[in-house]
Amino acid sequence: MTTVYLNGEYLPKDRALISPDDRGFIFGDAIYEVVRVIDGRIFEWDAHERRMARGLDGLRIAFGARDVAALRGVCERLVRDNGLSDGEATVYAQVSRGTAPRTHHFPPAGTAPTVYAFATRFIVPRELREKGGKAITFPDLRWARCDLKTVNLLGPVLARQAAAEAGAYEAILLRDGVVTEGAATNAFAVVGGVLRTSPLSNYILPGITRRVLVELVAELGITIVEEPVTHLELPHADELFVCGTTTDVTPIVMLDGRPVGNGKPGATTKKLQEALSARMYAAVGAAR
Amino acid sequence: MTTVYLNGEYLPKDRALISPDDRGFIFGDAIYEVVRVIDGRIFEWDAHERRMARGLDGLRIAFGARDVAALRGVCERLVRDNGLSDGEATVYAQVSRGTAPRTHHFPPAGTAPTVYAFATRFIVPRELREKGGKAITFPDLRWARCDLKTVNLLGPVLARQAAAEAGAYEAILLRDGVVTEGAATNAFAVVGGVLRTSPLSNYILPGITRRVLVELVAELGITIVEEPVTHLELPHADELFVCGTTTDVTPIVMLDGRPVGNGKPGATTKKLQEALSARMYAAVGAAR
Repeated sequence: MTTVYLNGEYLPKDRALISPDDRGFIFGDAIYEVVRVIDGRIFEWDAHERRMARGLDGLRIAFGARDVAALRGVCERLVRDNGLSDGEATVYAQVSRGTAPRTHHFPPAGTAPTVYAFATRFIVPRELREKGGKAITFPDLRWARCDLKTVNLLGPVLARQAAAEAGAYEAILLRDGVVTEGAATNAFAVVGGVLRTSPLSNYILPGITRRVLVELVAELGITIVEEPVTHLELPHADELFVCGTTTDVTPIVMLDGRPVGNGKPGATTKKLQEALSARMYAAVGAAR
Repeated sequence: MTTVYLNGEYLPKDRALISPDDRGFIFGDAIYEVVRVIDGRIFEWDAHERRMARGLDGLRIAFGARDVAALRGVCERLVRDNGLSDGEATVYAQVSRGTAPRTHHFPPAGTAPTVYAFATRFIVPRELREKGGKAITFPDLRWARCDLKTVNLLGPVLARQAAAEAGAYEAILLRDGVVTEGAATNAFAVVGGVLRTSPLSNYILPGITRRVLVELVAELGITIVEEPVTHLELPHADELFVCGTTTDVTPIVMLDGRPVGNGKPGATTKKLQEALSARMYAAVGAAR
């Protein structure tokens, strides 16, 4: 039986239960993170910790920076207790505003947040990484605070479902005529020989992998322009890829049924995929 | 102990528990309704039933029109079992896509939806109804499918919290320079002598009380124009009110700290308040 974490306790999964009055269930009033674990070591923990603390602060959920920092130990123990110390895993952690009688405005001070976390074996989809995947375009239905990693996720849910039904891996979201990001990834494209990605704003999740890639690009001497790719430019992109904690760099070689560039992962994409991989596995001291 | 309904069972509230892997908790992947009950009879059940079925269909949650119809009996029994058959009550009912391993796309067919409902005593805030309340304006942060009554409610949560901190009852939401609706209500204004409300669209919840008011307006021979009130017109409104299942018609007499019209509930507002009240209490055969 899988062991999960709930409000201070490590429990068999089937004994982890919450009230349906939890504001996570009633309002989607919660912040989450997913971290990547390789041979028991969390990649980029500090960045995930900062983003989670910023999100909780953004929603004013009373779970401060020290509480978030303490989740590192929770994640590490879940990895150990579930026999995931060797190889690859992910840990999901969510903090909701807690259980209270239903009012839209915040509940009384002192309402305890609900903290839930679980670890899962992660199998790297090597063929998808190497050959690239398909994507569709889909309207960006999300709210105006996409910079907060909340569980108000129906926009991504509907986009990913549309992708799955089209036999695609990801949906590239369009808002007001430009690409924002993927449904659960950040998106990059090479257009007219220039690497581009959307600048950070209230419509973009500040992805940890996105940030690592922007650093790597500088180290590799590649120029990146943080300007959104327009809907009109997208069909003419030479390369397209998405990135994320469980996505790494995944080339998109087919968009809306048409090949991207020559229909194979592009040179810049492969260079960044290599560089990310090197950074990731070196960071945790693991063999690849 | 309050009795609630969860997945076919009537339980003491503290024994109603769900998995934190419920997609309601992880993605806000759920539809809900709140109905008004007067002396044991539900006001406008059919309209709530239709809206809920449409929302579940919109999200493609496998809980069909017959399942929704059967919730009427659940609501009625919760009212009886909680001693709420006399006087006023509300019943909250929510259907999520159920518990499944976390994937953005839908879980396998056959995943059972989670159904939760509870009844609560409702105290009509008579002074607020008579004298009117305060509101603030707030950005409409919500996603592009506000016509579906989902629990992706962080936009309304943040708006109502801002209102509460300003000592106000409601937040009037502004998107692209026009009023959409209230954080948890529909909004109407009299501008230049003409009653106005936003037309139904993907940005507006099709309120049951809104629809009843549009019918009553016709019966009363009042002209209504379904065009949004602009941000610039709003400070010049003669009258402003919000409506909803627990809001009825509530006059807004102060907006962002400035009086609306003469700072008292307006004539059209009062006429509609009276007419709604007459319809509501006649419909359930209750004394007011």
